[in-house]
Amino acid sequence: MHTRLPTWAILTTMNASIINIGDELLIGQVVNTNATYMSRALTAVGIVVEEVCTIGDNASAIQSAIERHLSLYDAVLVTGGLGPTKDDITKETLCRMFGSELYENAEALANIERIFAQRGFPMTETNRRQALVPRCCEMINNDLGTAPCMWFDVSAQARACTGQSAVAQVLVSLPGVPFEMEYLVDHKVVPMLQERFQLGTIINKNIIVQGIGESFLSDRLEEMEAALPESIKLAYLPQAGMIKLRLTARGTDKTTLQAQIDQAVQNIRTAAAEFIVGEDFESIPEVVADRMKRLNKTLATAESCTGGKIASLLTAMSGASEYYKGGVVSYCNEVKHSALGVAIETLDTHTAVSEETVREMAEGARKRFNTDYAVATTGVAGPTGGTDTTPVGTVWMAVATPEKTITKKMRYNGRRQQVIDRAVNEVLAMLARCV
Amino acid sequence: MHTRLPTWAILTTMNASIINIGDELLIGQVVNTNATYMSRALTAVGIVVEEVCTIGDNASAIQSAIERHLSLYDAVLVTGGLGPTKDDITKETLCRMFGSELYENAEALANIERIFAQRGFPMTETNRRQALVPRCCEMINNDLGTAPCMWFDVSAQARACTGQSAVAQVLVSLPGVPFEMEYLVDHKVVPMLQERFQLGTIINKNIIVQGIGESFLSDRLEEMEAALPESIKLAYLPQAGMIKLRLTARGTDKTTLQAQIDQAVQNIRTAAAEFIVGEDFESIPEVVADRMKRLNKTLATAESCTGGKIASLLTAMSGASEYYKGGVVSYCNEVKHSALGVAIETLDTHTAVSEETVREMAEGARKRFNTDYAVATTGVAGPTGGTDTTPVGTVWMAVATPEKTITKKMRYNGRRQQVIDRAVNEVLAMLARCV
Repeated sequence: MHTRLPTWAILTTMNASIINIGDELLIGQVVNTNATYMSRALTAVGIVVEEVCTIGDNASAIQSAIERHLSLYDAVLVTGGLGPTKDDITKETLCRMFGSELYENAEALANIERIFAQRGFPMTETNRRQALVPRCCEMINNDLGTAPCMWFDVSAQARACTGQSAVAQVLVSLPGVPFEMEYLVDHKVVPMLQERFQLGTIINKNIIVQGIGESFLSDRLEEMEAALPESIKLAYLPQAGMIKLRLTARGTDKTTLQAQIDQAVQNIRTAAAEFIVGEDFESIPEVVADRMKRLNKTLATAESCTGGKIASLLTAMSGASEYYKGGVVSYCNEVKHSALGVAIETLDTHTAVSEETVREMAEGARKRFNTDYAVATTGVAGPTGGTDTTPVGTVWMAVATPEKTITKKMRYNGRRQQVIDRAVNEVLAMLARCV
Repeated sequence: MHTRLPTWAILTTMNASIINIGDELLIGQVVNTNATYMSRALTAVGIVVEEVCTIGDNASAIQSAIERHLSLYDAVLVTGGLGPTKDDITKETLCRMFGSELYENAEALANIERIFAQRGFPMTETNRRQALVPRCCEMINNDLGTAPCMWFDVSAQARACTGQSAVAQVLVSLPGVPFEMEYLVDHKVVPMLQERFQLGTIINKNIIVQGIGESFLSDRLEEMEAALPESIKLAYLPQAGMIKLRLTARGTDKTTLQAQIDQAVQNIRTAAAEFIVGEDFESIPEVVADRMKRLNKTLATAESCTGGKIASLLTAMSGASEYYKGGVVSYCNEVKHSALGVAIETLDTHTAVSEETVREMAEGARKRFNTDYAVATTGVAGPTGGTDTTPVGTVWMAVATPEKTITKKMRYNGRRQQVIDRAVNEVLAMLARCV
């Protein structure tokens, strides 16, 4: 078992790297979201990710990357190259590097058999070969797939070779299939790292802030930041039109850390109350979904320039049907009139991008879909379609509630997708503040 | 000026690496889409990307990564760390590494002044410092932003130091802001690489195939693949429910290569005609948008389980209003009836996930939105909501045309987002085939 001095000094310095193996990443076919997920998961428990490296399915590239990373980092997490085909060479390469041999692991085999039985497919010899793992590793069962995860205690092997004690160090080989990797990271690898490396206690707290720029927010939080104890770090994580503030407390005594976090949160609330949209969420759509469900309220959407993005983000989350009844994407005036009831007179007099139109869109959606709330957007996402009076980036937004309808006009810089994403966050933040 | 032997042997072996600098990447806040974009752009001109490396804003990490990459790769493309704040240290690090000094580049300064004038902001001293570049580099003007791009002729410097000839090698430092990087890669860096390294002629051809699995497609294309000349490579690039086939021809004589590509395309068309959705596009929504615009037809959407994703993808592309009039996201039976005209009897008798319902959704959308075509989806995206008769992953799809309505049922494996993405591609492919 790995043991490191469980001191604060050690806690702050554990570092890690990620190696993602796969030709599909190097030709730009697939976006490397695995690296993002793993970086976030390691950062959340206080492990500092210092490098992410993507290489192809090539034995010498794999070996030299792993050797280099083991010379630099405490924990090296590797994904990919564990499939059943001959392109998948990670296991053989690791086996050779560690001077070990492959054997058929009974638990891994039982898992593969179970998965094939579930799918109703016959298991082939090729599939059976996935149960082979190097003798020198600890097999971590992959409940969601056929490729086993492998934990290599690098320091133990160094001790065995040299008879001398070595710095605790681990290499973990994970499958590259995102949902298998995510499950293994969350439920097995990160808990094992926390336990075996005695990483101490970490408390994270997210606060979503919207409607204020980073530099203005930082002015407001200056005093609060100056008063933070050393055990707490504050990070500003800006996204489309919003900022996620992340407080991280690290140490050994949970009660003390929690009290420090609570105090810091209280100070942020005092300094920036009117801009806080939610706490303990990753995104504004999540805040809206949670609030609607908890209050048992229903929602409809009426989207012009955001073109269905609001609906799409809300329904990407399981359970959306509990509060979201539906929406209209009204990409022309005719539909704004026929499907949402915007008066032709309003469109003629005030144009499609106006306070009057967005108000009638929201109210029409709320009425026609028979919901408690409705949000609406209309604007010019660009890059074309702007005029002198309504330049590209102009977006009108509205939230209709049982009591009233509130509206807002924004003028965004940036490209089409940025205009859309900012408008989505803005109008959903307006809604979250109303509810 | 760089010159390499313009032989076929050289053409096949030029390699490159990408170094993305930024703490925000290592904590998992931002997905590294820059790497994907750059990998694709380099691959498209026949440059083999062998490694992507992400590191933080840290001088020693930057220097050691660059030194290592220059010892391994012909071209090293670096992004990030070029902003005006003191976190941004790429320029200083490169200057020190190459033993050069910073000077104020007049063209870069004029560009920064132009951008500030355009934005209507005053230019500060900090902004003016962005015009400083190392003397030893060639400044590439960044028309879209204030951080100049820099081209370092590494081999020329080696020659100057040692008096001996060196292998042609280049390091390019680019801003990390995606749209600035994309513009510079497409319009300046890649053309310069092609010209100075005499990369020869590359012809790429994409064919989107849908409705057939990779192994079945590969069986069908076996003969065609065996007949491919050495100058042509075929890659299978699978995405949600579709496969992009990419043919790449490399050589020196454009006419010959084009004739070879044409023959290969003809052979693919013969072998897999019924599965081809489009040629020369990156995605199925792109195929649909192009076809609708060219034929001057209009489209509406009626989405249940895809929850606005179809609308969102279509409207993410500029010019969508030329053919897309709008849609309904009907996330409950009430809305399927009220907004799309699905009969209550149909919903009661056949349920929401049925051929009858999806047909009425598509026909209702086409009629109410007054369009030539409409697509509709209804299903169980999961992970909950499945029943014995309608398990998770079941999706009914329909396309209503002026002549008829066609329907299709699929049963997808995979997680919620995969079910949604596959259904989107499937129903849009059905539409593309109708038109």
